[in-house]
Amino acid sequence: MEIVWKLITWKLKIKKNMFFPKQKNVKLKILKTRRGNVRLPAFMPIATRGAVKNLTPEELKNLGAEIILSNTYHLFQKPGLDVFKKIKGLHNFMKWSGPILTDSGGYQVFSLSHKRKITEKGVKFSSEIDGKEIFLTPEKVIDIQLAIGSDIIMVLDECPPYPCSRKYAEKSLDLTLKWAERSKKHFNLKTIHYKLKTKPLLFGIVQGSTYPDLRKKSAEKLIKIGFDGYAVGGVSVGEPREEKIKIIKLCAQILPKNKPIYVMGYGRPDEIVEAVKFGADMFDCVIPTREARHGRIYILNEKRRLKIKNLNSKNFYKTLQITNNKYRLDAKPLDKNCQCYTCQNYSRAYIHHLFKTKEPLGQRLATIHNLHFYLYLIKQLQK
Amino acid sequence: MEIVWKLITWKLKIKKNMFFPKQKNVKLKILKTRRGNVRLPAFMPIATRGAVKNLTPEELKNLGAEIILSNTYHLFQKPGLDVFKKIKGLHNFMKWSGPILTDSGGYQVFSLSHKRKITEKGVKFSSEIDGKEIFLTPEKVIDIQLAIGSDIIMVLDECPPYPCSRKYAEKSLDLTLKWAERSKKHFNLKTIHYKLKTKPLLFGIVQGSTYPDLRKKSAEKLIKIGFDGYAVGGVSVGEPREEKIKIIKLCAQILPKNKPIYVMGYGRPDEIVEAVKFGADMFDCVIPTREARHGRIYILNEKRRLKIKNLNSKNFYKTLQITNNKYRLDAKPLDKNCQCYTCQNYSRAYIHHLFKTKEPLGQRLATIHNLHFYLYLIKQLQK
Repeated sequence: MEIVWKLITWKLKIKKNMFFPKQKNVKLKILKTRRGNVRLPAFMPIATRGAVKNLTPEELKNLGAEIILSNTYHLFQKPGLDVFKKIKGLHNFMKWSGPILTDSGGYQVFSLSHKRKITEKGVKFSSEIDGKEIFLTPEKVIDIQLAIGSDIIMVLDECPPYPCSRKYAEKSLDLTLKWAERSKKHFNLKTIHYKLKTKPLLFGIVQGSTYPDLRKKSAEKLIKIGFDGYAVGGVSVGEPREEKIKIIKLCAQILPKNKPIYVMGYGRPDEIVEAVKFGADMFDCVIPTREARHGRIYILNEKRRLKIKNLNSKNFYKTLQITNNKYRLDAKPLDKNCQCYTCQNYSRAYIHHLFKTKEPLGQRLATIHNLHFYLYLIKQLQK
Repeated sequence: MEIVWKLITWKLKIKKNMFFPKQKNVKLKILKTRRGNVRLPAFMPIATRGAVKNLTPEELKNLGAEIILSNTYHLFQKPGLDVFKKIKGLHNFMKWSGPILTDSGGYQVFSLSHKRKITEKGVKFSSEIDGKEIFLTPEKVIDIQLAIGSDIIMVLDECPPYPCSRKYAEKSLDLTLKWAERSKKHFNLKTIHYKLKTKPLLFGIVQGSTYPDLRKKSAEKLIKIGFDGYAVGGVSVGEPREEKIKIIKLCAQILPKNKPIYVMGYGRPDEIVEAVKFGADMFDCVIPTREARHGRIYILNEKRRLKIKNLNSKNFYKTLQITNNKYRLDAKPLDKNCQCYTCQNYSRAYIHHLFKTKEPLGQRLATIHNLHFYLYLIKQLQK
């Protein structure tokens, strides 16, 4: 009797999945990767060259980081792929066991490298390190990320500058879309033998500069190709605030809700809160780590601490410049309500002193605090 | 009956202490300070400006550091005494709860400051930071160290350069001895109300350049004044190896064995092993931390690992320059037998990569390893 009942419920389950596939308008809350789950929205600390500046993987984990970002362009040049082959991947190299997303390097090719030449086949440029000529194709970029051991692979795209003529934006987008198609094809070919549980994810990147119709075209074409997640690229490249908001909002409306939406290289704390409201899920930004190294400290405004989610203004935080002389005798922690290691142990006067005497511990303690600020903020947005 | 017996044993104890005082030729094994015991010999990591470069107090404790050294001259100028008054001492400022020895600043006054003028009263010089004129006396240096909250206070001395004429050395020593006497007097006056358990220790400093008779005179005079410990200053200032060995050996012979003997700013690993054999107990040296920041890594020679104590040669260790290209693909840890955090987690290839890409984590991981090397070595010498 029990067996019969089990069979019936099992059949019903199959049928239910056939007729009611996962709904597209149900917002994704957890991103599953082969190296563990990531709660959304997520903020990814940046380990450009295989290390988050000043911090160990244990410190990152204690801060609540669930995923980090590294950079294909930089890792490919230094240490180089032979090192990843010998050491068996980036995770083992830097001893981070959680998921890693690798940027495709598209942004760096266009912003850092000189003498670059784009053809339909790929992009040729000379290395900033030794001047050697490098030729990257969409296929090669997939291969590099597979060799690095990335858990979330980004396709190669062209990131147009701002401002950008309509004509250039159109031409650039056409190329990016062709590359996206080739990327998906190559990725499928290369991962055909992977078991589902050990397969990395592949994300497409929406481009189209500040032109809404091009962005729409880009998003729709990528959805047609089909990716595990979708990134909004080419924002925060110098365009006015309204322009970037408009584009992020538009993309988030078009892209499927049951897939992660990742806004690349974004943003200030208030910008992240706003983008999450539009539907964005993933972020990476140099702000917390870079500003920490310059002594710029992020402080949560206490009155707004519990109401972040409902905020319409950007007044829920402020920054302080710890190198200012007024902190020389300040016995208070950076933020009296903060639970980070730095605030639980040290005074503003001490951090001020470390920066003033160029003690490297200062940058480390400030980085811990600022990353805690960002990761605490994102945790509030998950609720 | 029991009470009578207790009285008898108590009386016997008193008598024993009267007739058999602590023997001067019994070597001291533990230095008691108001902030805990320090096993001897001890190596003190250097926190010149109130931080061991790159490391937190927790990391220092995990490495086995029992005492650290900080610098009166630097702390007096930055952050300044008003900060220590506000934050209630260096321990609270930097969150190190163990003992701290503070260098008197004598060495820095003579090596760093310009326009200095020595009189019997004290030394006048201009601050390297703002050019302001500062006047330090033996008494003021004691007051500063008391304000900082130091557990082991060093007297102000003049550290003569090398080479140094007999005449200059004699004159300088006379001044240093007069200052030592005044220091002791002032220290006693200032700490008269301290309970024994909360009283810091005061160390005298033997000077006399490379002249054995002057060193002997210096040591004997200091013993007469009476200090809690004795330092050998003015070694490793450029003199040949034989000269410094001769002086350390001589001082260790004259100074009382039941008091700690501290060789200031000393030395290479093999030099420390040798000095311990002569009877030295305490050391501080920039080598492990400074060389770590330049990628110079200390490795224990495995065959000699267990025989350090009996060594006559300096072959029990070697160094490797991790920035060398041959470590680019080296999957081994810095030292395969080392138990430090760095060696338990990372490859030479990773540390090499961090140095090559100027990632600050590289200096931190190398510092952890080198300090572990020194503190492991000193632990072997304690057995």
